[in-house]
Amino acid sequence: MNVLVVYWHPEPKSFNGAMFRTAVETLELAGHSVKTSDLHAMNFDPVSGRHNFTTTSDEAFFKQQLEEIYATEHDGFTPEIEAEIQKLEWSDLVIFQFPLWWFGMPAALKGWVDRVFAMGRTYGGGRFYENGVYKGKKAMVSVTMGGPEEMYLKGGWNGDLDAILRPIHRGIFEFNGFSVLAPQKVFGPARSSEQERIAELERYAQRLQTIVDEPAIEVGQY
Amino acid sequence: MNVLVVYWHPEPKSFNGAMFRTAVETLELAGHSVKTSDLHAMNFDPVSGRHNFTTTSDEAFFKQQLEEIYATEHDGFTPEIEAEIQKLEWSDLVIFQFPLWWFGMPAALKGWVDRVFAMGRTYGGGRFYENGVYKGKKAMVSVTMGGPEEMYLKGGWNGDLDAILRPIHRGIFEFNGFSVLAPQKVFGPARSSEQERIAELERYAQRLQTIVDEPAIEVGQY
Repeated sequence: MNVLVVYWHPEPKSFNGAMFRTAVETLELAGHSVKTSDLHAMNFDPVSGRHNFTTTSDEAFFKQQLEEIYATEHDGFTPEIEAEIQKLEWSDLVIFQFPLWWFGMPAALKGWVDRVFAMGRTYGGGRFYENGVYKGKKAMVSVTMGGPEEMYLKGGWNGDLDAILRPIHRGIFEFNGFSVLAPQKVFGPARSSEQERIAELERYAQRLQTIVDEPAIEVGQY
Repeated sequence: MNVLVVYWHPEPKSFNGAMFRTAVETLELAGHSVKTSDLHAMNFDPVSGRHNFTTTSDEAFFKQQLEEIYATEHDGFTPEIEAEIQKLEWSDLVIFQFPLWWFGMPAALKGWVDRVFAMGRTYGGGRFYENGVYKGKKAMVSVTMGGPEEMYLKGGWNGDLDAILRPIHRGIFEFNGFSVLAPQKVFGPARSSEQERIAELERYAQRLQTIVDEPAIEVGQY
């Protein structure tokens, strides 16, 4: 299986960094091919604009989706973006590794989504959801929370974590055709002991051994 | 009333740009003081890191929240971030103007949130939600959607737009103590006629005339 791990955290020595390396090492040992997008190491620019493209459809007015369609037709994605799209095309499974910041992805990762998922190329012309371009591929989130699990329950302070993740599961993964695997969730690693963190890494490695056999989850309706 | 409008769109001539200018002009005409953060014009960097700070608490390991607490205690926010926090402190109402991209804020605006809302300064030490630092202030989203309203209903393709916006309403606004005003929603402005777009701008201007009297909404539980 071909796996793409997209990861951002500003500190490589962080628990997120350890989760990222655990995924890469475990999947490779299990015989899978792994590519990565380590957005911090890449110094990836998350802001969208004309620099996404080498081509220009409309010089007077920048409408990103129209430029994306034009770039799709004229091989006009900048090499940085083209490389990321090709990783998506190559992959059977995509994993997003990140810390939950303000109920969402940190900007660096959100901007990777904003720039890389492009109309014409990864969706559009009726190709979305059930008819999505990446139908047959799987995607999952591996996410860390600062707070404890009690804060992320239905009716709790923050509410159900699955509701918080739904914009990613439904709006990004399923929209582009991916089936969604259950999110890997780690609560409060910074407040845990070294032993507990190691146990979490082992729990993740264990899961990754057999992830190829995992069925997709149902993403909740709201 | 003091109003801060935080806005990002890559095309100043866009409908989002027109909504932004409508808010500024209408609120000023109504006698309010307005400050803006036009993140595209500012070329605001949305990626968090040590460059958020002029101080350093831990040179060996970058933990953003700990650096934020240290910066709060030692006047250590970089001038760019300090200026944005002071705008928040000054404001009675904060408006986020943006296009919904992938069920969320574009990275440029998400990164403004990631960098500006800082532990120690805008939350922390038990000061969140009901006891939030910005209790008494209001916040609202003014958002455009590419698709029609039918796509954003409960049980529809994308699901309830209010559920999609909840991470902002609950996880950012209410977490920091703001009361939430009803979001201003415009569906499919790019597919609308010039006349329809003007009507939407007028509808927004009309609302803004009396926004000072608007009660907060209940943000749904999940």
